[in-house]
Amino acid sequence: MNALPRFVVPPNAVQGDRATLDEEQAKQVVSVLRLAAGDRVVLVCEGDELDVQLDVVRKGAVEGAVVARRRVETEPKLRLTLALPLLRGDRSEEVVESVTQLGVSRIVPFTSVRSVARELSEAKRVRWERIARESAETARRGRVPDIGPVVEWPRLFGLLDTPVVIPWEGERERPLATAVGASLRSLSLVIGPEGGLADDEIALARQRGATIVTLGRRTLRSETAAIAAVAQVFVLIEGRT
Amino acid sequence: MNALPRFVVPPNAVQGDRATLDEEQAKQVVSVLRLAAGDRVVLVCEGDELDVQLDVVRKGAVEGAVVARRRVETEPKLRLTLALPLLRGDRSEEVVESVTQLGVSRIVPFTSVRSVARELSEAKRVRWERIARESAETARRGRVPDIGPVVEWPRLFGLLDTPVVIPWEGERERPLATAVGASLRSLSLVIGPEGGLADDEIALARQRGATIVTLGRRTLRSETAAIAAVAQVFVLIEGRT
Repeated sequence: MNALPRFVVPPNAVQGDRATLDEEQAKQVVSVLRLAAGDRVVLVCEGDELDVQLDVVRKGAVEGAVVARRRVETEPKLRLTLALPLLRGDRSEEVVESVTQLGVSRIVPFTSVRSVARELSEAKRVRWERIARESAETARRGRVPDIGPVVEWPRLFGLLDTPVVIPWEGERERPLATAVGASLRSLSLVIGPEGGLADDEIALARQRGATIVTLGRRTLRSETAAIAAVAQVFVLIEGRT
Repeated sequence: MNALPRFVVPPNAVQGDRATLDEEQAKQVVSVLRLAAGDRVVLVCEGDELDVQLDVVRKGAVEGAVVARRRVETEPKLRLTLALPLLRGDRSEEVVESVTQLGVSRIVPFTSVRSVARELSEAKRVRWERIARESAETARRGRVPDIGPVVEWPRLFGLLDTPVVIPWEGERERPLATAVGASLRSLSLVIGPEGGLADDEIALARQRGATIVTLGRRTLRSETAAIAAVAQVFVLIEGRT
């Protein structure tokens, strides 16, 4: 295990062999971790891991030299998109945290007819993005999942990688495993909101080519279904390799 | 979907064709659901589902007649035990909720060398039990998982059904799927605490016959690992049938 502090940075944070942390990360380095010039950190940038030796360390400005660069080996081969309904309270945030650790590439928040929560405030979006970044760091991933704008159900299907797979309590027969081929390079999972997806929403999804599956005979809350389905897709695909 | 209110009751709540709710459930029926004599509820008792027509409905006493009885079809064939470390804050409770929905039969809380939380207060245990009961009702299960007393690592292995499978970040090669045969009738999963399991704890577990596996290359927090591993075991076993 590499125990050095780990930060995910955007592409423009690295120019040649120079790396610059943003203000929040600089504060973390100076005030929380109390690092000094000469100390090392690991930066994660676009799927690469960079060992960086700090040489400028002061409040508001932390910079260093890139001394080694390697490919991150933890990213899944599957590009998995999770279409996640807005859920009440903090429940969506638990999902963002767990599915980021598990390896999703993209999270698309949506609302549908029976959605209770209908808006993602700017403050919440900022919190989701922070949780995704921190969870990617915890999981030692090479990328942070994208979090898209909130869309309504009918617009969702134009935005998702195919195949699109939707666990739904009205489907009793077809298990998830039959919709997840080991050779897939991309897949989108759509999870219903607290009140479930309506029959005509499922009909529209079928017209748009989605496959409807069951996660089993026990009724799952949305947040459990999201985490479980993502975990199951990865074991069905990566567990076979 | 059966939309009648649903309560899990202990065996002694049903005598012949008479059923009696406990005080908390009676309060729910009278004050929250506002049911009256003649209304029906579903009681779940030892793996059976009973349709009950209420005839006594008052604060502190709700009784009825059993008018139909059938076997619950939602219980998994696999008896899955989850050995769950005490986690900080409410994190264990999120796990109890999700893994109950997913279908675990038994939860054994434990502490190990690096555990941060070391005690399960009586108030917390009562809350865990309530969450397990309510989650079993939500999931439409036929049973509520048992929650055992808290044990220390060395005593854990005498209490667990075999095979015992432990996801551990020190194991890089052996995937969960290779330890989960489709014909298993029982299995125990052991999840490490926030600080991970120590090398000598893993050595002891191996001596006691446990199989050490990896959940993949991304580092998961304990609560994500618990929910993901339970979901993966069920898809590997039930998804194949």
